[in-house]
Amino acid sequence: MKVILDVDTGTDDAVAIMLAALHPDLELIAVTTVNGNVPLENTTDNTLRTLDFIGRSDIPVYPGLARPLVRHDFPGKKDYGGKSDMHGLELPIPEATSKAQDTGAVEYLVETFRGATEPIALVPTGPLSNIGAAVAVAPDIVEKVHEVVIMGGGYKHGNVTPTGEFNIWADPEAADMTLTAGFDPLTLVPLDATHQALVTREDVARFEGLGTPAGTAAARFIGRRIDAYTAGHRVETADAAPVHDALCIAYLVDREVIETRHLHVRVETQGELTVGQTVIDTRTHAAEAPNAHVAFGADARRFVELLAQTFARTC
Amino acid sequence: MKVILDVDTGTDDAVAIMLAALHPDLELIAVTTVNGNVPLENTTDNTLRTLDFIGRSDIPVYPGLARPLVRHDFPGKKDYGGKSDMHGLELPIPEATSKAQDTGAVEYLVETFRGATEPIALVPTGPLSNIGAAVAVAPDIVEKVHEVVIMGGGYKHGNVTPTGEFNIWADPEAADMTLTAGFDPLTLVPLDATHQALVTREDVARFEGLGTPAGTAAARFIGRRIDAYTAGHRVETADAAPVHDALCIAYLVDREVIETRHLHVRVETQGELTVGQTVIDTRTHAAEAPNAHVAFGADARRFVELLAQTFARTC
Amino acid sequence: MKVILDVDTGTDDAVAIMLAALHPDLELIAVTTVNGNVPLENTTDNTLRTLDFIGRSDIPVYPGLARPLVRHDFPGKKDYGGKSDMHGLELPIPEATSKAQDTGAVEYLVETFRGATEPIALVPTGPLSNIGAAVAVAPDIVEKVHEVVIMGGGYKHGNVTPTGEFNIWADPEAADMTLTAGFDPLTLVPLDATHQALVTREDVARFEGLGTPAGTAAARFIGRRIDAYTAGHRVETADAAPVHDALCIAYLVDREVIETRHLHVRVETQGELTVGQTVIDTRTHAAEAPNAHVAFGADARRFVELLAQTFARTC
Amino acid sequence: MKVILDVDTGTDDAVAIMLAALHPDLELIAVTTVNGNVPLENTTDNTLRTLDFIGRSDIPVYPGLARPLVRHDFPGKKDYGGKSDMHGLELPIPEATSKAQDTGAVEYLVETFRGATEPIALVPTGPLSNIGAAVAVAPDIVEKVHEVVIMGGGYKHGNVTPTGEFNIWADPEAADMTLTAGFDPLTLVPLDATHQALVTREDVARFEGLGTPAGTAAARFIGRRIDAYTAGHRVETADAAPVHDALCIAYLVDREVIETRHLHVRVETQGELTVGQTVIDTRTHAAEAPNAHVAFGADARRFVELLAQTFARTC
Repeated sequence: MKVILDVDTGTDDAVAIMLAALHPDLELIAVTTVNGNVPLENTTDNTLRTLDFIGRSDIPVYPGLARPLVRHDFPGKKDYGGKSDMHGLELPIPEATSKAQDTGAVEYLVETFRGATEPIALVPTGPLSNIGAAVAVAPDIVEKVHEVVIMGGGYKHGNVTPTGEFNIWADPEAADMTLTAGFDPLTLVPLDATHQALVTREDVARFEGLGTPAGTAAARFIGRRIDAYTAGHRVETADAAPVHDALCIAYLVDREVIETRHLHVRVETQGELTVGQTVIDTRTHAAEAPNAHVAFGADARRFVELLAQTFARTC
Repeated sequence: MKVILDVDTGTDDAVAIMLAALHPDLELIAVTTVNGNVPLENTTDNTLRTLDFIGRSDIPVYPGLARPLVRHDFPGKKDYGGKSDMHGLELPIPEATSKAQDTGAVEYLVETFRGATEPIALVPTGPLSNIGAAVAVAPDIVEKVHEVVIMGGGYKHGNVTPTGEFNIWADPEAADMTLTAGFDPLTLVPLDATHQALVTREDVARFEGLGTPAGTAAARFIGRRIDAYTAGHRVETADAAPVHDALCIAYLVDREVIETRHLHVRVETQGELTVGQTVIDTRTHAAEAPNAHVAFGADARRFVELLAQTFARTC
Repeated sequence: MKVILDVDTGTDDAVAIMLAALHPDLELIAVTTVNGNVPLENTTDNTLRTLDFIGRSDIPVYPGLARPLVRHDFPGKKDYGGKSDMHGLELPIPEATSKAQDTGAVEYLVETFRGATEPIALVPTGPLSNIGAAVAVAPDIVEKVHEVVIMGGGYKHGNVTPTGEFNIWADPEAADMTLTAGFDPLTLVPLDATHQALVTREDVARFEGLGTPAGTAAARFIGRRIDAYTAGHRVETADAAPVHDALCIAYLVDREVIETRHLHVRVETQGELTVGQTVIDTRTHAAEAPNAHVAFGADARRFVELLAQTFARTC
Repeated sequence: MKVILDVDTGTDDAVAIMLAALHPDLELIAVTTVNGNVPLENTTDNTLRTLDFIGRSDIPVYPGLARPLVRHDFPGKKDYGGKSDMHGLELPIPEATSKAQDTGAVEYLVETFRGATEPIALVPTGPLSNIGAAVAVAPDIVEKVHEVVIMGGGYKHGNVTPTGEFNIWADPEAADMTLTAGFDPLTLVPLDATHQALVTREDVARFEGLGTPAGTAAARFIGRRIDAYTAGHRVETADAAPVHDALCIAYLVDREVIETRHLHVRVETQGELTVGQTVIDTRTHAAEAPNAHVAFGADARRFVELLAQTFARTC
């Protein structure tokens, strides 16, 4: 299946990119980038370097929105610990040999889906600014998108605020526009699922041992994640970490890797305490029709096996 | 221990009243009433009749606020199925012989706690309008209240909205004022706990068999609840229902009946989708200090045993 | 007519107090105080000293709410230049000989209006926290209040925010509760009117020349106001200043001193930019019924004449 | 000067289009349409027919957004009297001979301004959905736009809500994005100005007497407006009406037709009562730098003279 990834690379986006670029069942036709945990220029550069490193600099990269769709910056920020210091991914190559495209991400998405004659899946793993802009400008593309798989949100879990997950919170208006645009099927992979698909230090050692560029890079990226999660007690299991974004790609090739429920989901765009929260209606008698398949469970071992097998490949 | 109950009676409030009025370790010194699922005149009348029926019409009842503290009505209401048709509790006595006090609930609460020389616990099991008003007018009473146990809120559960529980949602400003007033200890018993303390049809038969007024009334009230919950598939277990408010009283006499975590809790008072939601910060690194002991677990058998033993008593 | 003043004294509140205490047609039966531009302890002390200085320490002073009704502090505050440095009014007497009452303002207001057998006007000239609390706890007093005259709000004018006037903005929930409680008649005297009732340096000289305590104090207070307004270019006319709160008292004895329109008025309690704004519907086809007589014009000379004649008196 | 008009035609938009299309100093290079008082298909069709009728079907028309940028519909709507019944402008020609372009408005605006080598003014006279989308997708065009003149907002006047004017209220997020995007100069022509540029029945007779297509159409459109404004007492002067949108075009050719002040302007996007209000900071010490030249005055006679002279022309 053809895939377009929309990313704010980031270590877990990088793993997702490698998985999509290397898995034999997927054809990664483009990567679009967006402002997120690091500024747009860094998410773009990190994306280019990751593709370069695994020998896939043939995949075009389109830079997108440099800030949220409506807001000049993330909401409030009083509760957000600050952007990562590490703007550049730690990779053995200091600079990408390839360059980003001149065309912007939104323009590329609109043109590509309008002209699509084959199924193309759209997998956003950063703030949804590009997707929100695309559906606002060209609502006709919604029915041309074969499938959407989003990494974002949380039911029991927040990270940047008590109830807000970064990707959704960082651009709540765009996230709500995306969820209510009519994409079908739309799958939402929130923290509740990704925190069950933990990758361990043993898994990292296995990736390292593959001896491939992807194995080496994955080991490095995920190793760093485990360090940070363990130091911060951010998951209950020590010496393990979620690799959120990659789980979305895994789902494209293995439908059993997550378990979903079909529910009505919106995003709070106002709220003093809850701006950016995903509002998932799990009540028996929800008032509104379901619009998202929400992942509540994940199979960690199945996920890791998929990563290991794919990263054993060289392009 | 002395106890004041603040209620919007209601079948589960009625069970809580009977438990507090009959348990030998508690002295229920007064009941204050508030607008809630039924209007104030009904919550007051239901309270009077319940006390009458079990022979405790000596306990004074003080009527409180007839609407939310700040709002003219509940927020939005688009998602709220409507107030119960059954305004009057089904009890063998059509009318209370006793009457409500002339003094209002807020005035009573302020005067009583100001003059308190012994520990008095405050247990609100309806919207928090009276409590919010009392702390606004007389913040000095906060440190005179020995303990507060609130039935309200939800972490994974909402009932009137996707994320909102009725008592908190019905007066979000008063709820937030109560939670942030400085009461210590303050225990919050949300739906997450009460939905684990389900009472079954077998338990109802046992209450019925006690042959006491309280046993009879409890069987009737809880039987009705089970009918409604089962018909609406509102809990996963058929032929069982939560009796939310009574769990708060149970906690006063048996500290093991619930399990709590000490967390920071606020109430969203704005928000388009989330107004009235309890915002419970369960993150490892919550930004704010804990202000509430939140119940996440409950021991159903322990709870039922306590009800059965207490309802075997006559006053 | 009997009058109760509710104040956050403040120089213009002090002039209002003197006008109400000395005018022969008014009987100032009590002053209640509230948190406002200076903390409650200062508004109370300033009130006591003002009454002392003009020989009216017989008038009781009841301290009220020390913070807004619902909020822990004023909204946002990003735009508010900070509380005045001068917490204590500059008066020749350093300390009040009289003391504030033990009874709180809200309790006093509720009891007094409940028992009222003669018409009593209520004139709030600070944030409406006390009034909002009183109508929440005792909505039955609304119809017992003969008349309400509020200093607050702005139609074309804001002071603390682009569209917000301090008294309304400082406690928007209480202000909205007061405006929608059903008081009839309720007159709102906003900045649009008070900025037309400017008192000049010449007027100040005239007050000074009266040789009375009230004349001396008024000259000092208003002189300070003129200094501040002129330095800040806060009104178009140099060497003149509004004395907002006193205009409300003037209206009680001279109905021609302001011109009003009967309109629907609410207060925005949410809003990112507009919280605390008075929303005055001046459209020909307003959707809601009028609830306030809003002053848009004022007769400065008539106002000053009234001040001069009254301040010539000694009690 | 080259001009692009962005419209939701509408009688006053139609007059603006004719003024821009016929005035010798202006070159109307395109018209973009947007959802507004009537649906997009009607605003587009009305635009095409107006251009046809005056012989300017050479000017291309690009259809834009069919709903607000972020919202699925206008905010709340509880106070909005309903969309006009008359979706189609009453013109002697039933159908346009020309057709709208295939390219969307946003795409056209982005490409045109990116490639602009000469000054082009942008004049939006409907909801700002297209402009908001364009600056989100392509912020680089902001500095390529020579000048922006917007019809929208109100200082003392609201129409659809107590404080909200339709164009701004109908898409508050897009309006705020447009005002804060950095366009310079940006002129805002609110109701406060347009209500001073009233066109009378006598003026209409004069237009009618011109004997030109534009004179005939203007007489018909403005005559209808006068009927409606007079019936609804919507302006103080009977037998006269504002022609809001045309005043913006008039300003491009006669800088004396309005009087402006340079101020900080934002749009409230939240707020229970004030969503969609333009927040114009007229305080002496505004906290933020000016971003808009706001028209507070207009010269009606000068405006009418310009209309009459221009509508005497045939293309």
